[in-house]
Amino acid sequence: MNPVDIAVIGTGPGGVSAAITGKIRGKSILLFGSRRLSEKMQKAQKILNYPGLPAVSGSEMAETMLRQLDQLEIPILEKQVSAVYAMQGFFAIQTAEELYEAKTVILAAGVVTGKPLPGEDRFLGRGVSYCATCDGMFYRGKTVAVLGYSRHSCQEADFLAGICGKVLYFPQLPHDIAVGPGVSVLSEKVTAIVGEDTASGVRTGQGTQYDVDGVFVLRDAVAPDKLVPGIRMEGNHVSVDLQMRTNLPGLFACGDITGTPYQYIKAAGQGNVAALSAVSFLAAQK
Amino acid sequence: MNPVDIAVIGTGPGGVSAAITGKIRGKSILLFGSRRLSEKMQKAQKILNYPGLPAVSGSEMAETMLRQLDQLEIPILEKQVSAVYAMQGFFAIQTAEELYEAKTVILAAGVVTGKPLPGEDRFLGRGVSYCATCDGMFYRGKTVAVLGYSRHSCQEADFLAGICGKVLYFPQLPHDIAVGPGVSVLSEKVTAIVGEDTASGVRTGQGTQYDVDGVFVLRDAVAPDKLVPGIRMEGNHVSVDLQMRTNLPGLFACGDITGTPYQYIKAAGQGNVAALSAVSFLAAQK
Repeated sequence: MNPVDIAVIGTGPGGVSAAITGKIRGKSILLFGSRRLSEKMQKAQKILNYPGLPAVSGSEMAETMLRQLDQLEIPILEKQVSAVYAMQGFFAIQTAEELYEAKTVILAAGVVTGKPLPGEDRFLGRGVSYCATCDGMFYRGKTVAVLGYSRHSCQEADFLAGICGKVLYFPQLPHDIAVGPGVSVLSEKVTAIVGEDTASGVRTGQGTQYDVDGVFVLRDAVAPDKLVPGIRMEGNHVSVDLQMRTNLPGLFACGDITGTPYQYIKAAGQGNVAALSAVSFLAAQK
Repeated sequence: MNPVDIAVIGTGPGGVSAAITGKIRGKSILLFGSRRLSEKMQKAQKILNYPGLPAVSGSEMAETMLRQLDQLEIPILEKQVSAVYAMQGFFAIQTAEELYEAKTVILAAGVVTGKPLPGEDRFLGRGVSYCATCDGMFYRGKTVAVLGYSRHSCQEADFLAGICGKVLYFPQLPHDIAVGPGVSVLSEKVTAIVGEDTASGVRTGQGTQYDVDGVFVLRDAVAPDKLVPGIRMEGNHVSVDLQMRTNLPGLFACGDITGTPYQYIKAAGQGNVAALSAVSFLAAQK
């Protein structure tokens, strides 16, 4: 399979905008995300400052943008990207099931809200995982905690219930919770991951400790430097210039991931710039 | 009169976006521009890559944005800004008739396409003018050339016809030409302004020379460093950082004026960022 011209990671307004402009410029596009586009957008009651869409609700905005993607025949690949590697002359994009290749990448994966939990960094890869599909099998018949951040986490928890002996679900952020009978929902917030050499439990705000064999932290966004090894950061954000270039040639970023303000119209504008920078980069490679 | 919180100069998508976000953040706004918003936008046949407005025509986009300004009760001051001066703690904004004051300024005046004409810089203020209202009276009973770039230039030419002896209108860019009987339209493009100490004629692409006493160059946008003395440029563009700050504290810029790509959605995104930066600047002043 030939590498695609532009892989866009994320379907918030930044990613949508990048995909649209890239497609219109005649490039092949791989768009990773969700047909709900963005949970944050879906939840926005009223967006007042998006020029052209006066007083629109977030779900209306998402619907309009989704229709626009459909009209331009840009499919959304509903897969979670776990890593992006800069290779010699192309990028390798890792999902749970498959590896994709792209000549350029536009990161529009949103921002990670809040700091890692105590113990999270320490036990990452040693009992802490960000990907149920990738690591679920390691916990066959065992007890796992799922830290849920959005509706998507519920599906992951159900998937784990088919493998693991016991699945404890902790809603970390408010969201609709719809899980099957194999998942026990605990209305407590996990405040720390504990253990010795590997994670062996979670502690909650109520002070209770639950013993588990593995902890799945299912945030919608992964910290950019965990997603893309070698990317230059500024605090919690990817460092970009005005053309949305990162320090890695061929890799661009847009939207909340590049820093404040976290605004829909700003993300959409940056997505456009990132796509046109990718187009220029591709032209220069020839 | 107290200085307004934010003066926005220009009603393209950058200026409109800045005004909307500034207003929503509770700031007082002065928006300079036109109720046609932007001639470039009005002429755009189909805009395919503005997320949220699939395959919209430029005039439809302008109509939607104008309605949004009206809903938010943001009036448009239909005056041409001829200069912005950074004073001690505020900005003075010069129009032909009046001087306005603002605590912060957002420049969204678009980009000047093309270089100055030969002779233009040399004779500026000595026979060459950018403002009919300001300088028309100097040419009472005399012959002037009007270099027209848009429909707005026609109105200016008509105004000059009421003062000057003879008005020659040269359409420099294609546009609807509607002038009164006092204006002679010549379908030739001026390629140079000639003279000794002061401008005394224009030369056209056909090689013809017309003797005149004054030349009005009525581009929609003035070069930013002519508009704002002391502003830092990068080539033809205003130098900005990712927060849309210029080198002058309290002065921000967005849209085409900040550089390529010249795109509607990028301008709208930058306008939002510029407004929020102005809001932060105002907060820090207190």
